[in-house]
Amino acid sequence: MSPLNILYAQSGGVTAVINASAAEVIRGARARRPQVGAILAARRGILGLIHEELVDTDSFDDAVLRQLARRPGGVFGSSRYDLPAVAEAPALYARIFAVLAAHRIGAFLYNGGNGSMDVVAKLSAEARTRGYPLVCIGVPKTVDNDIEGTDCCPGFGSAAKFLATSMLEAGLDIGSMAARVGRVFVMEVMGRNVGWLAAATALAARDTADGESDPDQPPHVVLLPEAGFDEARFLDRVREVVQRVGYCAITVAEGLTRDDGSPIMEQSRDAKGYVQLGGAGGVIARLIHERLGYKYHWAVPDYLQRAAGHWVSATDHAQAGAVGLAAVEYALAGRDGVMASIRRLADSPYRWEVVAVAAGAVANLERRLPEEFIHADGLHVSAEARSYLRPLIEGELPVPTAGGLPDYRPFRLPLLPKKLPAWPS
Amino acid sequence: MSPLNILYAQSGGVTAVINASAAEVIRGARARRPQVGAILAARRGILGLIHEELVDTDSFDDAVLRQLARRPGGVFGSSRYDLPAVAEAPALYARIFAVLAAHRIGAFLYNGGNGSMDVVAKLSAEARTRGYPLVCIGVPKTVDNDIEGTDCCPGFGSAAKFLATSMLEAGLDIGSMAARVGRVFVMEVMGRNVGWLAAATALAARDTADGESDPDQPPHVVLLPEAGFDEARFLDRVREVVQRVGYCAITVAEGLTRDDGSPIMEQSRDAKGYVQLGGAGGVIARLIHERLGYKYHWAVPDYLQRAAGHWVSATDHAQAGAVGLAAVEYALAGRDGVMASIRRLADSPYRWEVVAVAAGAVANLERRLPEEFIHADGLHVSAEARSYLRPLIEGELPVPTAGGLPDYRPFRLPLLPKKLPAWPS
Repeated sequence: MSPLNILYAQSGGVTAVINASAAEVIRGARARRPQVGAILAARRGILGLIHEELVDTDSFDDAVLRQLARRPGGVFGSSRYDLPAVAEAPALYARIFAVLAAHRIGAFLYNGGNGSMDVVAKLSAEARTRGYPLVCIGVPKTVDNDIEGTDCCPGFGSAAKFLATSMLEAGLDIGSMAARVGRVFVMEVMGRNVGWLAAATALAARDTADGESDPDQPPHVVLLPEAGFDEARFLDRVREVVQRVGYCAITVAEGLTRDDGSPIMEQSRDAKGYVQLGGAGGVIARLIHERLGYKYHWAVPDYLQRAAGHWVSATDHAQAGAVGLAAVEYALAGRDGVMASIRRLADSPYRWEVVAVAAGAVANLERRLPEEFIHADGLHVSAEARSYLRPLIEGELPVPTAGGLPDYRPFRLPLLPKKLPAWPS
Repeated sequence: MSPLNILYAQSGGVTAVINASAAEVIRGARARRPQVGAILAARRGILGLIHEELVDTDSFDDAVLRQLARRPGGVFGSSRYDLPAVAEAPALYARIFAVLAAHRIGAFLYNGGNGSMDVVAKLSAEARTRGYPLVCIGVPKTVDNDIEGTDCCPGFGSAAKFLATSMLEAGLDIGSMAARVGRVFVMEVMGRNVGWLAAATALAARDTADGESDPDQPPHVVLLPEAGFDEARFLDRVREVVQRVGYCAITVAEGLTRDDGSPIMEQSRDAKGYVQLGGAGGVIARLIHERLGYKYHWAVPDYLQRAAGHWVSATDHAQAGAVGLAAVEYALAGRDGVMASIRRLADSPYRWEVVAVAAGAVANLERRLPEEFIHADGLHVSAEARSYLRPLIEGELPVPTAGGLPDYRPFRLPLLPKKLPAWPS
């Protein structure tokens, strides 16, 4: 049997640990030589497959691989690209399979979110139709934690750790400032439709005896898209907290909507109709100021929350690596069309394993916070949510530095010589 | 001679290392017993002096002192309070000296910024007028780095390190995302009138051979209040950067003004006329979107930048401790009315020492970026600025953690029994 040539690609919004998956794909595949042949990575995600922009990762020595594993952002480049159905774009599929064939690629490992699992399923199906020998494997990744079929998503734990730490630290700051008038701090976190990252900030508060969030500690309120937004109830709570502890710290998911479904955030659309979100934090802060007269500060960590390589969760980093490693094994075992997924075995002490789930069964779904993770008052998370979240942010890794900053070195990514004519668009 | 009783208080906006100053005041004063007697700290800054809310720090054992030194926010509480002139508030001064006398306090160590040095000078002068034996010492602190008479301000280096790291990491994120349209990332940092923190983000870019910021690396543009804002020139630069590298990362100081002096940010005023700033980042991002059509993200780290105890500059932490320690020595030496200040001896390798400057000479001034720190094009910092900034963010400290978060324990701060009647307001 000829060796298996593997192509790895990154997709969608990147994370602080996406390259840990890449590094373990490469390391794991190298360890399986001679069954494995070439280990390639696509530039710009699937665009690199379409445009035949492929990197031979054999140019990375062990030191470079170690740097890769700790670098935030997508080293090979990522893109948001919705692969159309075969019937809509036959030439595009012909091109993709021409590139695969030109480089004799037998396994495609796609590191992405919900939409990426759809691509895995589509390419898998089309390969069978064409009789092309391809194993397609999904490697999950998203800070949003919204992929079905996995207990958690690599990338989430590190963003969650950064945000919980940020809420803890900002809470100590605002809590130490005496003032005659009430003060609020609002932190807007990522999550267009889901409240996983918002929920994670609850870990900044200590446990009560019942495993709930201590109501006197930041965040005092967590506004979740899944819980809706009852303005009067929210403002009552803020007033009550300020009267009790002097200030109030609030987390809001960027995609929070009012109970009638209208968004809290300010919206604008660009020329192509792409919705530019942003501003839920400012809207909530100003609402409090107008109604209750409190002073306010608001923060929007934005990219900082998904790129904080200086403060990743060791658990998350290990899981990102493990799904990459598993994907290689699945590829060698010919387990086409599966996603490497995390299964939780126990909360405390936390134990987990990697299992395969069908990519097609989870594609394009969106996992929202289950009802039992939302506190009965709709303004915070439950003890169950805390038990779920707690292990995901645990553990720290040493941070190599240079000049006071994380030592992220530039990567040389020479493209393989192209074998096909250029693809027009 | 009877032992010297010392009172320490925190003032104004807090920092990630303000408690390192507190810890070294306490440690240094303990080491000078029996010349030193009581070592007290005021709750809520100078309000604690007025209201006789005093903590005896002897309740802190060595382990608690170590925790104190690493905890962001002001453990004893801080406040923004402009002490009026004696003629305007004779009863208030009488009260302050009554509290000092009741606890036989002979030294007041005030940990704050420009305005706090004015308080040091005022209390020093009034003590002489009254013949009350008091030594007043300023301990500098501000993330804004705008105190005159010191090479840098404790608190700045850590905020600078956090922001430069954030720009570096967010830059890797946006730089890895391929897109057909240009993309920009705008990070709004603190600085109402001064651009020190904005300037510090330039360290995210590597040096060119001339010691300038590599023009291809984030941040590609740094908008400084001291440089003004020429919209056309700015947009030209953004377009040029996007055409060259595909995206553009921009730092903007919250207090940026247009060339006519009008602020960029959206403003609102609360009921007391306190200006609520915020929004320069969003305004700049939307401006780019409207004029150039690029997609945008913007971040506002807000409190996160001054509270990031998980990622402090070891240099900054050492300097915060050193000015606290020096203040104790100045107090014992009777050097009334001085501020402990950092003097730079060499850039590289960086060497510094602590010297005393007259608090009255630096009070209420505001140190802005010198002209030679601004790049000739007005859109970035100069090589000189980089040389100045570089050592201030250097060095890391281990972070004690629990459950994946920095292990910031609660502090017990029992108040000393009051000896005087309550102060009414």
